[in-house]
Amino acid sequence: MSHVLTLNAGSSSLKFALFTAEAEPRALATGLVERIGTTPQLKLKSATGGVLAQARLELPGGRDHAGALKAALAQLRHHYPDARIDAVGHRVVHGGRNFAAPLVLDDAALMQLETLVPFAPLHQPHNIAGVKAALEAFPRATQVACFDTAFHRHHPFVNDTFALPRGYYEKGVRRYGFHGLSYDYIAGRLKQLAPTLHDGRCIVAHLGNGASMCGMVAGRSVASSMGFSALDGLPMGTRSGQIDPGVLLYLMDQEGMSPGAIAELLYTKSGLLGLSGLSADMRTLLGSDTPGAREAIDYFTFRIRREMGGLAAALEGLDAVIFTGGIGENAAPIREKVCAGMHWLGIEIDAAANAAGELVISTPLSRVHVMVIPTNEELVIARAASALAGSGAASGATA
Amino acid sequence: MSHVLTLNAGSSSLKFALFTAEAEPRALATGLVERIGTTPQLKLKSATGGVLAQARLELPGGRDHAGALKAALAQLRHHYPDARIDAVGHRVVHGGRNFAAPLVLDDAALMQLETLVPFAPLHQPHNIAGVKAALEAFPRATQVACFDTAFHRHHPFVNDTFALPRGYYEKGVRRYGFHGLSYDYIAGRLKQLAPTLHDGRCIVAHLGNGASMCGMVAGRSVASSMGFSALDGLPMGTRSGQIDPGVLLYLMDQEGMSPGAIAELLYTKSGLLGLSGLSADMRTLLGSDTPGAREAIDYFTFRIRREMGGLAAALEGLDAVIFTGGIGENAAPIREKVCAGMHWLGIEIDAAANAAGELVISTPLSRVHVMVIPTNEELVIARAASALAGSGAASGATA
Repeated sequence: MSHVLTLNAGSSSLKFALFTAEAEPRALATGLVERIGTTPQLKLKSATGGVLAQARLELPGGRDHAGALKAALAQLRHHYPDARIDAVGHRVVHGGRNFAAPLVLDDAALMQLETLVPFAPLHQPHNIAGVKAALEAFPRATQVACFDTAFHRHHPFVNDTFALPRGYYEKGVRRYGFHGLSYDYIAGRLKQLAPTLHDGRCIVAHLGNGASMCGMVAGRSVASSMGFSALDGLPMGTRSGQIDPGVLLYLMDQEGMSPGAIAELLYTKSGLLGLSGLSADMRTLLGSDTPGAREAIDYFTFRIRREMGGLAAALEGLDAVIFTGGIGENAAPIREKVCAGMHWLGIEIDAAANAAGELVISTPLSRVHVMVIPTNEELVIARAASALAGSGAASGATA
Repeated sequence: MSHVLTLNAGSSSLKFALFTAEAEPRALATGLVERIGTTPQLKLKSATGGVLAQARLELPGGRDHAGALKAALAQLRHHYPDARIDAVGHRVVHGGRNFAAPLVLDDAALMQLETLVPFAPLHQPHNIAGVKAALEAFPRATQVACFDTAFHRHHPFVNDTFALPRGYYEKGVRRYGFHGLSYDYIAGRLKQLAPTLHDGRCIVAHLGNGASMCGMVAGRSVASSMGFSALDGLPMGTRSGQIDPGVLLYLMDQEGMSPGAIAELLYTKSGLLGLSGLSADMRTLLGSDTPGAREAIDYFTFRIRREMGGLAAALEGLDAVIFTGGIGENAAPIREKVCAGMHWLGIEIDAAANAAGELVISTPLSRVHVMVIPTNEELVIARAASALAGSGAASGATA
């Protein structure tokens, strides 16, 4: 039987999943290699949640993404000896201004991805490393790139540009938006669950370690809280979110910080971690009673409300809000705190439904419907890879 | 009779006005020296609008702010020989985190203003130069600083902080907000015109060459579209407004731009000018039919709507919108375009009242009231200077 492998390579992690290759792929197993580069650790679970493998890795070929992929494949081969990987789907952060759909990767396409590294220097190289490792492991499989930016590529000009001299827009300094695979999944799921809401004006809040919000009309992205990079918009675990450009000028002029030091500050030391002085993890903050933890939560939920108001303006109204991502799916107190301040927009939460994490957490008479929908980026990747492998000239390769 | 002089020193300009010194000062004359440093030009008008003087200046003591002030005073002395300047009120851009009210300037206070230069390196030095020139000209008058940040100094923490490590907040990296003298004036005027609206939730859009918006509850600022510097928030004549911090990192890393070059780009080449490729002046853009001019107007009005939604979230609802500033007071098509997309928030505009620039431009049944109120920053300065001179140990000095 034909299978699809999905890969999601971060700076020090590699998420992977094995799916059946069909129009609606079925997940067989999901896995994660963490702490690549230091003390790598692998975990593999079956689709039903059973742990198949959990081990500290002694990576033979160095401690890089290629080594992590080899270890992941060894485990998959052991547990799924008959799996035949005909397609590998890759999450790729940046598709630039041209890629609005998944892309079959050949040498020319891979070179195009390399040209986008300057737009996402902290993320794109890891995605490309993942593609190269997969090309080596599965030289005959169809390799498919699924872009986090693609879902947003049809924003109207006012949501795509900054107020810079026009030349910058032409060379790609635009409001790309990210988390597109998650929004794509939610849009599809909403169409199944509530077609009339799907056809209306919705805001999806993808709240995880990375966090952004997307305004959709009829399932298409109209605006995003994220812009050119994965730094803008909502505060995140360790990222600042929206910040006055004057702060960066101040840090350089007055504190003598280098661009590299500022990038490190804004990407890794800010957000919930910086503001709380305690942790980047929302679970830890919710369990703490320090003023810093409380203020970080206040800021996080306030910025979500502020962004919700801004996106409602972009949509010229609002019919539904959908929470997703690790925090959005699991942190009932965060959802409650966000919604408590949004009566003015027609949002009324049913406290019991919210505490129970039900699909619909608004009251029956709330003008705006509020829902919790678990996301599934891997499935979106598997669908695209499966579809493009089926339509292309792929030949199989045993895992 | 006792008089108050107000001074508003920009990088290449000096606005000045002569008022009677009383609880509600009466303007006698307003003047402007433009193009200080290159080809300075002075204009002086009486309160009724008659032009009293208009001349290219040959500045004796160099072409600096002190020379400009000398020329201005010579004109005032000529036309108002009996004026006795007991107080000089200065617009000062930055009052840092401590100054929430006007301040009588002695040597110690002036030194404190100098410590704030790093927070507004492009503006504060000119304000201080204006103070020094006035101290020299009126050594015995009460010198009063009126801060553009002061009106916003009681923002709740979530509107005052960025998501940076806490130490940055402690040392003053905060969301200060600006145009506070204008908002202060509007709040007072609204209290006279519509006391129940004043006591509610209002958004004031100060749209001039600089532009920002302020969310108020009961006449007090709760949130501003501007943050740490005068760059953030709305796009302006030549300033970018909100921009992803990742864009600055990109410009440094990939284009090798220096902090100084980026500051010049974001302060002087962006905004309406950059986006239109045509002009920083809204009148020119409204009179043009180029695609660039149209797109710059679309972006400007869209960002106002987006910010209005965000500020409504900060206020948890909205009762009134007030337009002010050069564009806000005079550009009916801009007001119309902003409001046309805000039906969802309860805004309905009366097209004829808007075109005529009436005080109230919303329809009688519009849930949110929309008004046009001309601002008067000079009067706010004159009130403060007059009050503090009256209460202090000031002795007069003839102009």
